[in-house]
Amino acid sequence: MISKEIITEEFKSLQDSICEAVQDCDGIAEFKEDRWAREEGGGGISRIIENGDLIEKGGVNFSSVWGSVPEHSRHSFGNKAGQFYAAGVSIVLHPQNPFVPIIHMNVRYFEMDDGTWWFGGGIDLSPHYIDKGEAALFHEKLRKVCMDHHPDYYHKFKAWADDYFFVKHRNETRGIGGIFFDRLSGPGTKENIFDFTLDLGKNFAPIYIDLANKKRGYHFTDEQRQWQLLRRGRYVEFNLVLDRGTKFGLETNGRIESILMSLPPTASWKYNFTPKEGSPEWCTQQLLKKNIDWINA
Amino acid sequence: MISKEIITEEFKSLQDSICEAVQDCDGIAEFKEDRWAREEGGGGISRIIENGDLIEKGGVNFSSVWGSVPEHSRHSFGNKAGQFYAAGVSIVLHPQNPFVPIIHMNVRYFEMDDGTWWFGGGIDLSPHYIDKGEAALFHEKLRKVCMDHHPDYYHKFKAWADDYFFVKHRNETRGIGGIFFDRLSGPGTKENIFDFTLDLGKNFAPIYIDLANKKRGYHFTDEQRQWQLLRRGRYVEFNLVLDRGTKFGLETNGRIESILMSLPPTASWKYNFTPKEGSPEWCTQQLLKKNIDWINA
Repeated sequence: MISKEIITEEFKSLQDSICEAVQDCDGIAEFKEDRWAREEGGGGISRIIENGDLIEKGGVNFSSVWGSVPEHSRHSFGNKAGQFYAAGVSIVLHPQNPFVPIIHMNVRYFEMDDGTWWFGGGIDLSPHYIDKGEAALFHEKLRKVCMDHHPDYYHKFKAWADDYFFVKHRNETRGIGGIFFDRLSGPGTKENIFDFTLDLGKNFAPIYIDLANKKRGYHFTDEQRQWQLLRRGRYVEFNLVLDRGTKFGLETNGRIESILMSLPPTASWKYNFTPKEGSPEWCTQQLLKKNIDWINA
Repeated sequence: MISKEIITEEFKSLQDSICEAVQDCDGIAEFKEDRWAREEGGGGISRIIENGDLIEKGGVNFSSVWGSVPEHSRHSFGNKAGQFYAAGVSIVLHPQNPFVPIIHMNVRYFEMDDGTWWFGGGIDLSPHYIDKGEAALFHEKLRKVCMDHHPDYYHKFKAWADDYFFVKHRNETRGIGGIFFDRLSGPGTKENIFDFTLDLGKNFAPIYIDLANKKRGYHFTDEQRQWQLLRRGRYVEFNLVLDRGTKFGLETNGRIESILMSLPPTASWKYNFTPKEGSPEWCTQQLLKKNIDWINA
């Protein structure tokens, strides 16, 4: 059976190849790397890019951590006690241009000393302005990755993303969703599920670069920039109030600057802001809903 | 014994007098009011001020809500089930000028249908730049309010504020603290404790106006503005990750725009930002610690 060492090495290579591709695409900014160790076991490699031509702030983090499951966070480990091992790659990219979406990807592997293991992961898109054609293309590409591995994956994991990336207190989705899965250990072999997870990871860079290149040069106004900052505010709300990865990081005494690399360079809050009916901002807000079939919308 | 109706009316008057004083002090912006009802019982009056001469964004909220304790949030009600009544005034003011501190005040009253009741409250200051003289004066004024009511209050509630307004994941305090108390129902009569709580509320406006007027005209650079936005980022982290009032609001299906009025107009995050040793920003960071005796520092 495939070992945690191999999975970890593949995740590390994934970080390398994604950083190379994203940096290349940005054209002017370079990733800065920090290697960090976790007192209780393991550590990570954080790579951050700031003030680029495409990316205003983004991070591509790798980590592999291990130790005892903290008493107060057993729920994050399938309600198990004992020793755990976790490895993963996490990405959030905040673009300069409001017409380029925020993107997030995560792939992760867990195992416990009782022999149980699972994979998790996902890619989701948070456009400041929703473009139905772009959304259809994005979901079509995720569907293809899924279909290459299991006929049920896209349908199931698309619904899971809708549920997961939902800002409950705002009663709106974070963006147009994507796919999300957790505690996946079947059907199929461990190799099958790892192949799927890694395949998703390898699809991240081409999917993002393609959509970023289409709109990175679009002209935008101050008002459109303001709207981008407000949407980033919602992104902050999701990540700090609801995101399980962030909670997991804080609970397991992860490196705070790496966990919070997901936060935007700047965000705004305006009391009770309501876009004008019929405006592009209003249209976007109308589409922040679960269960939209983007491919056929 | 003093009734919830009287307490509620006094809290409502407190909101009025504070709004009048703050608006007067700002000089150009006016509070806008929204009255809202809560489906499960009660409602509130939110008053928001934006783009003023002194205040960039701030809110002075009154609410009185009642109903059944939600199953999942009994911990917010002293682990009790049954019917509750809660009334309070909450304030957060984000100033334009980085040399003027962010201030927060809250006074609140709870009662349960089993006859138990308690008061809570506090005022705390989050300067973007800590000024020891200002901190001493601020704490001295809070100490005076406390000493007028009970010899143990300042000492006890100052330590409570240090513990409460602590950003655990950053290992730093939110600012220079102040006083904080919760579930206060003795010693003394209900009238005594209400008098103290209301007295604290009435001291808010003179305390804030005095310190705001001292520095609102200070010249500041772009770098100082950037530092203000980073400190506001920490404020967002505290409020969304740790603040009990925010959690209580989200759990009890409060009005989201009123709960999140505490968030700043704009905030920033920069990866691993470390101020230059010896700089004013660095000096402030060194003082974000618990248990500083500001009055005698």
